[in-house]
Order: sequence, then structure tokens, then C-alpha cells
Amino acid sequence: MNGAESLVRTLVQGGVEVSFTNPGTSEMHFVAALDRVDGMRCVLCLFEGGATGAADGYARMANKPASTLLHLGPGLGNGLANLHNARRARSPVVNIVGEHATYHRAYDAPLTSDIESIARPVSAWVRTSPDSRQVAADGAEAIAAARAAPGGVATLILPADTAWGDGGPVATVPAVAARAKVDEARVTEAARVLRSGEPAMLFLGDRAVRADGLALADRIAARTGARMLAQVSNARMERGAGRVPIERLPYPVDAALAALAGVRHLVVVGTTQPVAFFAYPNKPSLLAPPDCEVLVLAEPAEDQVDALARLADALGAAAPSVRPGSPPPAVPTAGALDGDTLAQALGALLPEGAIVCDESVTTGRGFFPATRQAPPHDWLQLTGGSIGLGIPLATGAAVACPDRKVVNLQADGSALYTAQTLWTQARENLDVLTLIWANRSYAILRAELAHVGANPGRKALDMLSLDNPPVDWVSLARGYGVEARRASDLGEFVAAMRAGLAHRGPFLVEVLL
Amino acid sequence: MNGAESLVRTLVQGGVEVSFTNPGTSEMHFVAALDRVDGMRCVLCLFEGGATGAADGYARMANKPASTLLHLGPGLGNGLANLHNARRARSPVVNIVGEHATYHRAYDAPLTSDIESIARPVSAWVRTSPDSRQVAADGAEAIAAARAAPGGVATLILPADTAWGDGGPVATVPAVAARAKVDEARVTEAARVLRSGEPAMLFLGDRAVRADGLALADRIAARTGARMLAQVSNARMERGAGRVPIERLPYPVDAALAALAGVRHLVVVGTTQPVAFFAYPNKPSLLAPPDCEVLVLAEPAEDQVDALARLADALGAAAPSVRPGSPPPAVPTAGALDGDTLAQALGALLPEGAIVCDESVTTGRGFFPATRQAPPHDWLQLTGGSIGLGIPLATGAAVACPDRKVVNLQADGSALYTAQTLWTQARENLDVLTLIWANRSYAILRAELAHVGANPGRKALDMLSLDNPPVDWVSLARGYGVEARRASDLGEFVAAMRAGLAHRGPFLVEVLL
Repeated sequence: MNGAESLVRTLVQGGVEVSFTNPGTSEMHFVAALDRVDGMRCVLCLFEGGATGAADGYARMANKPASTLLHLGPGLGNGLANLHNARRARSPVVNIVGEHATYHRAYDAPLTSDIESIARPVSAWVRTSPDSRQVAADGAEAIAAARAAPGGVATLILPADTAWGDGGPVATVPAVAARAKVDEARVTEAARVLRSGEPAMLFLGDRAVRADGLALADRIAARTGARMLAQVSNARMERGAGRVPIERLPYPVDAALAALAGVRHLVVVGTTQPVAFFAYPNKPSLLAPPDCEVLVLAEPAEDQVDALARLADALGAAAPSVRPGSPPPAVPTAGALDGDTLAQALGALLPEGAIVCDESVTTGRGFFPATRQAPPHDWLQLTGGSIGLGIPLATGAAVACPDRKVVNLQADGSALYTAQTLWTQARENLDVLTLIWANRSYAILRAELAHVGANPGRKALDMLSLDNPPVDWVSLARGYGVEARRASDLGEFVAAMRAGLAHRGPFLVEVLL
Repeated sequence: MNGAESLVRTLVQGGVEVSFTNPGTSEMHFVAALDRVDGMRCVLCLFEGGATGAADGYARMANKPASTLLHLGPGLGNGLANLHNARRARSPVVNIVGEHATYHRAYDAPLTSDIESIARPVSAWVRTSPDSRQVAADGAEAIAAARAAPGGVATLILPADTAWGDGGPVATVPAVAARAKVDEARVTEAARVLRSGEPAMLFLGDRAVRADGLALADRIAARTGARMLAQVSNARMERGAGRVPIERLPYPVDAALAALAGVRHLVVVGTTQPVAFFAYPNKPSLLAPPDCEVLVLAEPAEDQVDALARLADALGAAAPSVRPGSPPPAVPTAGALDGDTLAQALGALLPEGAIVCDESVTTGRGFFPATRQAPPHDWLQLTGGSIGLGIPLATGAAVACPDRKVVNLQADGSALYTAQTLWTQARENLDVLTLIWANRSYAILRAELAHVGANPGRKALDMLSLDNPPVDWVSLARGYGVEARRASDLGEFVAAMRAGLAHRGPFLVEVLL
């Protein structure tokens, strides 16, 4: 058994059952080992950003890591943007990055680079395996590191000779500590400020925006009068009819400041205090009012659900009566094709158990209210702001949950970073409906530019326009083997969305806005 | 004048006339400044790997840097693979990477990451500008660093407040030292070994494989009986009828060892001693015979042409008589569509002044001999082994040389990393003919896998196959606004290539192999 095989066996035994791969020469021993070991599903991606974004989507839905297989520094570089998103989602991911043989690095062959330097900014754990007999143990540690609360990216760099040399024994994953319980003092302090009668808000992220966390927060809010708000971008929210609804902090700074205005006590669970996505001249970086006291009840790495439960108990917060909730909206039959009617159609048509992968950017800012009473579903967002996540994220979620419909709400500009991942959806026949919001511009930047220059000129506007030539998404999707159609009015959109939901396998609708 | 404008004016004054851009929010002040300053052409790319690969292609043909405009760590990450190739090509490139405002970084907003750590492995120079009044001077230093011999990637990280704050004066680029002349002792020693009568070889790269370097090397070889060989992958070779032909070191290790067998003295100019691209069990990393003496006549940063001229003079090597050369091959009219007939067709049809951007990988290994007597042309290769360069490289070369036909010889698997760059070719109406070698597999890896596993299994072979589903390149190209057709036999290929050469603007031919 060579090092590669000892590693693959360790991964499988450690619960890593899927590998999103984009291999090269230095990974051929690893690839050959996959043939000899049962239990690892290999999903080929045409570009590393597809592999890493898929690993993120898989982790968010499976609650455990997949592996990637990447080719030296440049392959890792191609995967970096979506690893950044995975890091911000706190998704467990195990990267296997091939590297030159240990003795070959000294000769600075063309593909040589400092892989660790590239890996560190996105990784909670980085190691270059020194020896083929050590590879299995390193792989086990990588799994443990990825799974350690709150979840993170572990990058194992695998020199070719550590793959082809004699392997050590298959390794067992070290025990991963349970999430730490928060000190009672923090629960007591949170209960005190919430009882104070002063305006208070629960600011939630991570596990606190899944169903059980939200139910507990809702009890606390009902008991104390505190408001609830989720952070801007969340790895996975559990929502829909019968679940506790929550709004998110708005992305634009002014709207965010307004949402937090008047709050005197912010009780933070599973995230950090609210911070502006970007800085702007003469606007604050910290969004809570200056006189607001921020109390972190539970960090992302801590047991947020336990902390909320203890806080609810401390407050004597009983379960609120089940809200009737308004019915979901009806399918819209008249009106322009715009954010409002799209939202209404989504709310009406989203199927039970849907996994929504939302990289809508500007188009989707109004989607939340209209989908509040859709059947229960998961909502996955762009966590790190690094665009090009949606198609890969949907790919990974579909691999994790083959019996659920994945609906990818996708801005066109962002989709163009990683469109080749549609091919993987076709190859694996993944049940993903991709809705492309074709506004043919970097619409978010047009708003930003307007803030900056009074009269943006032609050169600047040109750099934010994608209409010359217009991208033909139906043609692109078919090029990658995915069935597609175009919708240019509301009736066509509703019909296309229904067709896509009825279709089993990947389907794309280009929505002309 | 704000910092951004002081930087743009400095870039333009410093000879940086093109910016390959993929901007985001943090770069909006820079974008707005571009409106106010004449002299900078902005070329929008849908993905950062397109921008960085285009900057590489531009630099190879223009012999000076373009700038890129990238969005924080993830944007740089997306551009990293082709910056790796640029680094190996020793192409001067000035990266402008937007960053959070200096005071905002402390809050770890979602897009925050360690940009310098990502930049260093590909950059000869990295700086985060500390202050808006310093930005122009930093930009001038970046240009000087990029242009310093042998040429490199300079990465200037631009915090948003250094762009929007008051700028300093427009800065002048510091003087860039001329390439150093080599010590006379090295010339003397090279002359001695070449006169020794023992088997010798000139091993050439960088400037030594452009026309003037090759002409000098040819004089030396004719005088001394030394052989000439170019390194495996070259940034830019000047070749074709009337120029000195040279073969390259083969990529496969066994063939490379055979090419170097028996050489007792290797005189290296503009590269390093021959090193295997990858290591393999029981094969050497260093390819020259163990008893071969390696003498570096000129490093890449040194004046290679001067060194060759002095060596030629020291040897009394007169200009050889002009070789008649055999005529280019005739257009093939019969035969299968394979590497041989493709090579013949290229040799017959390549127009004068063509810029060949070659990411053919396996398909193109036989293209050199058949194109030796084509009209004079440039041949640009994948220098760093990081695939996905061809389409961006062709894009940048076409921007640099609008009056020349660019012919991109493109493996299909590699093209799928950066296919969206075709859109930039359509938008700018660049005169690029892309020939896609559609073998629908990672053919190079199949050969590597065969070395590794006696009987590669289905799982491994699946990971190297791109035929399920087949990618439809005509559909993809049209999706990005590029005219395209398919060729499935030799007659169709010749007709399609002729049509593409006659067409002014981007054109793609999917060649079914």
C-alpha cells in the first residue's frame, strides 16, 4: 500500500465520501489509489473553483467535509476564491493539493511555487506531508482540523513521493471536541440586558439561524420584546412555513444603520458584531449605534443552540404558540418581469425541501419576504463576498442531497466566473434548476459607482456593462450539456420555472431582466 | 486629485497604456479616475484569470507591462494561475489589487484576507500602499519593479482610502537598469569548452530564442559544431522562413534524456539547466548526463544577446550563409484529421506575422517541424504549466498587436478553465482565430496514469475523460458572442481555418479529433 492509498483509505474511514477533483500529473498516484478503494465518490470538475465551491455546498448540507483534489499552487489558486467563501461559511473542507516530489522542489521546475503561502489565507490548518509513511496520519489530522468547531478549511499538501512511497497504516481521525458550552456568566449577563427593558436585539448567524436556534431565539424574543435579525450572509438558514422567520441585516450601509438604529443591547450569537461589507468615506465600519452595548453570547465555535436554550430557560421563555402564518403568495399572472414578480413566483413555486443556493446579488434583495411561507426549505448564501459561488455551491448541495431539488438563484455576472461547473451537473445528472438573472451588467457596481463619481463617464460605465455582446446563456448551458430555455416575460418565466422544477436533472432558465 | 487619479496618471505617464480589468466595489474610485484620465485603454474581462493571462500575452508582445485591476484577495486568487505563467515567462505585469480601507481591515469584514500572502508566490514585488499621498510613488515603483530585468510581476495593493484620499504628485518611474553584461570570464570559459572538441550544446531560453539571439547562436554552432536546443516552454520564440530554426527539449523525461545524451558541455543562455517538469520514481530530476558540465553563459536577467555576440566574436564565428530552407508544406488534401495533418495545414496556412499562442498540450507536440518554414511568426507557449492560459494569452497578444493575426492552438481541457475570455475577444473585436483540439479528454494525464497504474480502472479513467457529456464548443463560442464552426474531417478543417484566417475578428473552430 503506497502513501496515496493509505490516505484514500484514511479519508474514507474518516467519513470523507466525496472528492471534488481537478487532478494533474502530480496527483496520478492518488487517482490510481481511488480505483483500489471503495467508498469514495469522485466528482470531476473542469475548474478548481467548481471543485472548492462544490465542497462548500456539500459541507453546508451534509454537515461533514468532502475532499477536493487540486494540482499544485496554480490549481489551489484557481480554487481560492470559493475556499474563501467556505472559510467564511465555516464549512469543513479537506483539500488535497498535489505537489512536486520533496527532492524535486529544489530544482524550481516550472510548476513550483510556495503552496503554503497561497493556502494559509483560506485555511485553518495547513500541512505539507513530509513522508509517505506519515501521509495517512496527516490526512486524519486534516479531517479533524476541518471538523473542529466551528468548521474550517484544512489543506494537506501531498508531495508526489509521499504518494508513491510506502504508506503507513490507515489512520483514525483524532477525536473532535464537542462545541464548547459558554460560561454561565454570559447567559446571566444576556438575560440581564434583555430584561432591562431597553431596546435589545438578538443578532444571529451560523447555527443560530437553523431551525432549532431560531425557535429558541423566537422564544427569547417573544418573552423579552427583543428584536431578531440575522447577519447579512449566512451559510445555511432553515426557513419556510412552520419555521420562525427572520430578516437579515441589509447589505447597503445606510439601510443597515437604519435597521440597527436605537438598539441599546446587541446580543450576538454565532457571528460577530455587525460590520460594513465595505468601508465608505464618512460612513462607519461598525454598524451598531455608538451607544449600543455588544454582548457576545456565543462565538461561532461555541455551542450556540445550548447557549440559546439556557438563555431561554433563564428568562422563563416558554415556547410561543405556533403562528398561523399567511399562506404563500399565489403564482403571479400579470405584471412585468422584475424583482417583485420573481419573488412572488419563487414564493409560490418553491417545492418542499428545496435547497436554495442564492447568488442573486442585487436582483434578489426582495426575495426573502415573499418566500417566507413557502414550504420548508434551506437557503444558502454567498458568505465571503467572492462571486462565482452559486453554480458550484448548487452542484455540491445536490451531491449531498440527491433527493432534494436544488434551486440556484444566480446573478449573470457572477455566474460567468464558474459557468463550466454546469458541465459537472450534466455529467452527474444533478437535480439543479439554475435561474440566471440576466440584467447584463454588474448592477451592484453601478450603484457603488454612482456613490463615487457624480457623473460616471462612458469608460467607467463600460466596465460595468455586460451587454456588448450579450451573453447567450441558453447557448452556454447547451454547450455544457445542460437543457435550457429563455424567459423574457412573466408568463414565460413561470412556465419555464415549472418545467425546470418538473425536470429531473440540471435545467437552466435565462431570465431576461 | 485623489490617490486613485494620481495612480492612474502615474501609470499612463509610466507607459502603462492598457488595463485588463475585473473590478469590484473597492476599486470604484480607481474606475472613476479612469474616466478623468486619457491614455489608458480598459479591457474588461469576465474572470480574473482572463485579465492576468491577457496581461501576460500583452507583455510578451509589447515588451512592456499592462496593468490588471483585481478585487481583493479572492480576485487575485482567481488571477493567480496565469500570474504564475507570467512569472515563468518573466513578463512584466503591474497588478493593482483593491483592498479594504486601511482602518476597515481590523474588523475582518467578509472579503478580508491576507492579500500579500496570496501575492508573494507569483510576485517579484509586493506592496500595500499605506497612504493616499504615497500611492503614485508606489505605482511608479511597481512599474520599475515589473520592468527590472528579467521582467516580473509587481503587485500593488490599494486600500480604498488610499484611492479616495488626497493624492500626491504624479510620480516618475525610477530608472530601470539595463540588463547586466556578463563577466568576460564566462565568455572565455564558454569559448574554451566549445573549442574543446567535446560534444557541446547551447541550451537557450528567454531572449536567446528571439531572432537576434538565435542568429548569434547559429553562428556559434556553425563555427564549433555545438548543437542548439531551446528549453521546453518559451515565452516567445521568433521563427519561420528566413530565421534560424531550433528544436525544443522534449517534455517527456525519457525523450528529454535521449535528446541530451552524450552532451559533455552545456552552455546555458537565458534559462537554467534542464530540469524535469515533474519527478517520477526512479527517473532523474536533472536531465543533463551526470558527466555533463553545465556552464551558465547568461542568466535570464543578464544581457543574453550581448553575451552571445561576444562569444561569437571570441570564437571568430562569422555569419553563416543564409540557408535556402525547404518550402513550407502544401495544404494537405487527404488523410485523417490528426496531429500530422493539422501540423501540415498549419505550416501551409499560417500567415506572415502570425502570433501563435500555443496551449496545444499533447496534440501539438509535432507542430514545430511542419511550421519551421511558414512565413515569419511568433510562437508563445505555456511557460508555467498552469493550464487555462491560451485564450487569455491570445486576447492580450491581440490587444498589443492589432494588425497581426493571432492563432490560438488550444487543447480543449485547458480551454475550459478560462473560456469566458472569448467574450472579451468579441467585445473588443480582437483578431483571434481559436482552434480547439477537441479530443475530449485530459490526454496528457492518460499517459501519466498509464505510467502509474498497470491497469487503470474505470473510476480513474472517468476522471480524465471529458466526453460525458461532450462539450459543444460551437455553442459555447456563440454564447460568448464569437462566430464558430465545427470541423470533423480534414477538408472541413482546412476550409474552416481558411475562413477563420480571412475573417477579421474572433473566430473559433472546434476540431473533432
